[in-house]
Amino acid sequence: MGYQFDADTAVSGDDGRWSATLTDDWSIASGVPNGGYLFAVALAAAGQVVPEQRLITATAHYVRPGQDGPADLAVEPVKRGRLTSTVAVALNQDGKERVRVVATYGDPALQDAPVQHPIAAPVIPGPDRCRSTHSELALAIGATIAERFDYRVLPVSRWVGGEGPGEARIDGWIRFADGREPDLAALPFFVDAFPPALGELVGPVTVPTLELTVHVRKQPAPGWVQARIEARHIAPGLVEEDAYLWDSTGELVALSRQLGLWRP
Amino acid sequence: MGYQFDADTAVSGDDGRWSATLTDDWSIASGVPNGGYLFAVALAAAGQVVPEQRLITATAHYVRPGQDGPADLAVEPVKRGRLTSTVAVALNQDGKERVRVVATYGDPALQDAPVQHPIAAPVIPGPDRCRSTHSELALAIGATIAERFDYRVLPVSRWVGGEGPGEARIDGWIRFADGREPDLAALPFFVDAFPPALGELVGPVTVPTLELTVHVRKQPAPGWVQARIEARHIAPGLVEEDAYLWDSTGELVALSRQLGLWRP
Repeated sequence: MGYQFDADTAVSGDDGRWSATLTDDWSIASGVPNGGYLFAVALAAAGQVVPEQRLITATAHYVRPGQDGPADLAVEPVKRGRLTSTVAVALNQDGKERVRVVATYGDPALQDAPVQHPIAAPVIPGPDRCRSTHSELALAIGATIAERFDYRVLPVSRWVGGEGPGEARIDGWIRFADGREPDLAALPFFVDAFPPALGELVGPVTVPTLELTVHVRKQPAPGWVQARIEARHIAPGLVEEDAYLWDSTGELVALSRQLGLWRP
Repeated sequence: MGYQFDADTAVSGDDGRWSATLTDDWSIASGVPNGGYLFAVALAAAGQVVPEQRLITATAHYVRPGQDGPADLAVEPVKRGRLTSTVAVALNQDGKERVRVVATYGDPALQDAPVQHPIAAPVIPGPDRCRSTHSELALAIGATIAERFDYRVLPVSRWVGGEGPGEARIDGWIRFADGREPDLAALPFFVDAFPPALGELVGPVTVPTLELTVHVRKQPAPGWVQARIEARHIAPGLVEEDAYLWDSTGELVALSRQLGLWRP
């Protein structure tokens, strides 16, 4: 049986020119796909160039909002190498570029060595002792993404009606709602699948992403992915947000940073 | 009087096609320019497209080592907007691409609002009570960059003969040796101008940069720039390194993260 993430990020085409159909099922508002979804689609095309290597770092610059419907992807191999390769992708819709992605892939051995000095996961209650988020409000504004993931967050989170942690930070867990296991393709989406951490400090807020960079450090084991999302340097205008993801064995699998626009 | 950084990052040309001459004065080994220098040159070209906006985030993917000598820069405006604009640059030498950069520029007002929640600078002794680094060893291997900057670091640093801080971390200060003040153009170079923080943990080490992203958060005030460079998730294969820069008033002006290759 196929999973929705795989169907909705599928690309077709060939050498240099790919196409995809963005669905309205990963949206943050009616018809506005989540940035992580666009990223995942762009990377699905980029990865065709270097199937023998694994994604290790990718950056997306969001230049216009995406929309549901057809997209075409112009894929440019920047450099193919034995150890690493770099690919650029422009995701276009209706003749206008929406996202520019540059991604570097590498020999799988680069991700397989034991970690000597880790960024350890914070100790938080397991998914069963965290709170599920409520998708009713989200769905009312067309945020269909709320149904695609299972989120579990600390009870203190404003997202589940708590007082907030006193910082711009979300700690919790994420997995696909339909049972698809996490993998390298899913991680660039997971890092952007939470609401803005800034909301935990200031209340409901919109923070459009200008740029998002993810480092993929390891293939995740099956199961829940633990997440920490935090914004640390907050000024009207620009806010950065870091995400850390650990797999079910406690290993860091991805870390990301994005720069968002905040206009209070 | 002109400063060397300005002369050595100057670009000439016009619409879409720029050229520069990389000098051997910012090298990490004989004839091998520092990655931050290549980044600064690429951004000098990118910035020509949007002179009325300021750099806010840029990513460099290093695909081949650079060299001293002529470079040509293919500049592609991805999107020009009133609030933000995005530009891509390919820096080529001898017909081979060395670095691919994507940069987003924005309305200066985005960087000028007072910070509400800061990443504060660690409290360390001032430059006069830190140690100057010794450039003799560096110059012996052609690391001319050692003469272009004044570095002052904590006495515990292995870089100045200390025992190391017990972490992959460097705390200290940086400024141009010739008295040029820091500015937005210099910050993407400053974040990459230190030796690898990993060296403080494992001893002398080479960590070629695969990807470097910098967020420029504010125009720096004149004077010394305080720096923290740290690597937190360390595995043979890949190591990330974060840099934070604060200006002489204590304001965070830039933060960066890079992913490097480490093959012990």
